[in-house]
Amino acid sequence: MLAPDRLAALDSFLIDLNRASGEVIAPLFRADHGLEDKGTAIWFDPVTAADKGAEAAIRKLITEHYPDHGVIGEEYGEDRPDAEFVWVLDPVDGTRAFIAGLPVWTTLIGLRHEGRPVLGSIGQPYIGELYIGHAGGSRLIARGTEKVLKVRACPKLTDAIIATTDPEGCFSGAELGAWTQVRAAAKLARLGCDAYAYAMVAAGTMDMVIEAGLKSWDIESAIPLIEGAGGLVTNWRGNPVGQQGGQIVIAGDRACLDEALVALRRSAN
Amino acid sequence: MLAPDRLAALDSFLIDLNRASGEVIAPLFRADHGLEDKGTAIWFDPVTAADKGAEAAIRKLITEHYPDHGVIGEEYGEDRPDAEFVWVLDPVDGTRAFIAGLPVWTTLIGLRHEGRPVLGSIGQPYIGELYIGHAGGSRLIARGTEKVLKVRACPKLTDAIIATTDPEGCFSGAELGAWTQVRAAAKLARLGCDAYAYAMVAAGTMDMVIEAGLKSWDIESAIPLIEGAGGLVTNWRGNPVGQQGGQIVIAGDRACLDEALVALRRSAN
Repeated sequence: MLAPDRLAALDSFLIDLNRASGEVIAPLFRADHGLEDKGTAIWFDPVTAADKGAEAAIRKLITEHYPDHGVIGEEYGEDRPDAEFVWVLDPVDGTRAFIAGLPVWTTLIGLRHEGRPVLGSIGQPYIGELYIGHAGGSRLIARGTEKVLKVRACPKLTDAIIATTDPEGCFSGAELGAWTQVRAAAKLARLGCDAYAYAMVAAGTMDMVIEAGLKSWDIESAIPLIEGAGGLVTNWRGNPVGQQGGQIVIAGDRACLDEALVALRRSAN
Repeated sequence: MLAPDRLAALDSFLIDLNRASGEVIAPLFRADHGLEDKGTAIWFDPVTAADKGAEAAIRKLITEHYPDHGVIGEEYGEDRPDAEFVWVLDPVDGTRAFIAGLPVWTTLIGLRHEGRPVLGSIGQPYIGELYIGHAGGSRLIARGTEKVLKVRACPKLTDAIIATTDPEGCFSGAELGAWTQVRAAAKLARLGCDAYAYAMVAAGTMDMVIEAGLKSWDIESAIPLIEGAGGLVTNWRGNPVGQQGGQIVIAGDRACLDEALVALRRSAN
């Protein structure tokens, strides 16, 4: 168990990390961002100077302030992944939105303590929003104001606003079938938002996000944030998400989650 | 032909209309916005106090300053639709994004002169952006700065970043086939952005937007904005979009548009 004063110091440091990352990314958004394709001939996998520069800036600050902490990042791999504290990060989640000029990309930074996610943030520095949380509670820091984040009650899937990023692009055939079934039952579905949609569940304006094929850095930062706002993060079997990512569901209401899991479980890995 | 000083006065008035609309909408975003469903049992068609209040505020300003102008709006219908000047507006385009808390909804206001769209804007007041344009040029006004908007060259569809809002939700079967074919050829597709994606074409960060089933107020404001930035707005046959909306394509580069039209034309109404 992490002592409250220690957690408070790390929470404050996480705000600093977001500020440093945002300062690198801001001048590159909607500008010449040095796009490269690290994918294969059939799968476009973009990376930009924003991804790399921001991850380098975050790693530098961690090394200066907490040299014994580990870091796992999308661009520069793993350093001390078995340390007591490990930062798991993706400075530009939604690189495709980023290169399209759409301000729904986010900066994801999470912290593991003894293997468990204990603190995390979803930041959108262009809009000026930082969603941040831990077991003690979650909040939105936006343009000088702070607001408590709280999921909303939504016990029925028929009343739910749900989201996924790209059904055709991200789901396998069986996964697409499960998504289609859940979507047909839900009130409203939104597409294209990557991790920004997770923050909307924490804020109580959406009810569920369903994704597959995630990496640890795509989801770990969201776990303390969502749980601190009263929500749940599970895999498609309803079990805790481990350090491997994969198929995930984020929900504000346990009853609504259980309804969706009936369909999702049949396509669970 | 509209005299330059008259156009400049109307351009300035359009900024005022956006300000008035934003003041009504801002306190309702991510708050209790009086959601109603004006749809049928099988098609959820949300409308909020933001849609209605903002349209009323815009209409009031028009009546005060230009009592002889006509107005066509999504919520309150048509007044003087055959006037020399007619404002065509949708204060919250992307109501589904709005109620989900996602800041990609936009305020669309266009002006017809003698039946032709001559001035238009796409505003996102929460982010603090106003994309505005006419034949003399288009620009982005954002947080005290102004920037010229210019489409980018992208002659090949294989290099294009394209968008649509919701393939399964908005396209008929034949339309979905055409979209799928264009998407397969493009470099990257983004979903879920409604008219915000039009602004990205004007800004030169995206290359094409493909939609169907639009109303006049969903598209007319974009025509002067896109053309003022050097781009094109056509229907799926490559012809000018009339006052009826319907199937539309917005593109930054004529050669890329022509490539997409090969597929789209076969599903054109």
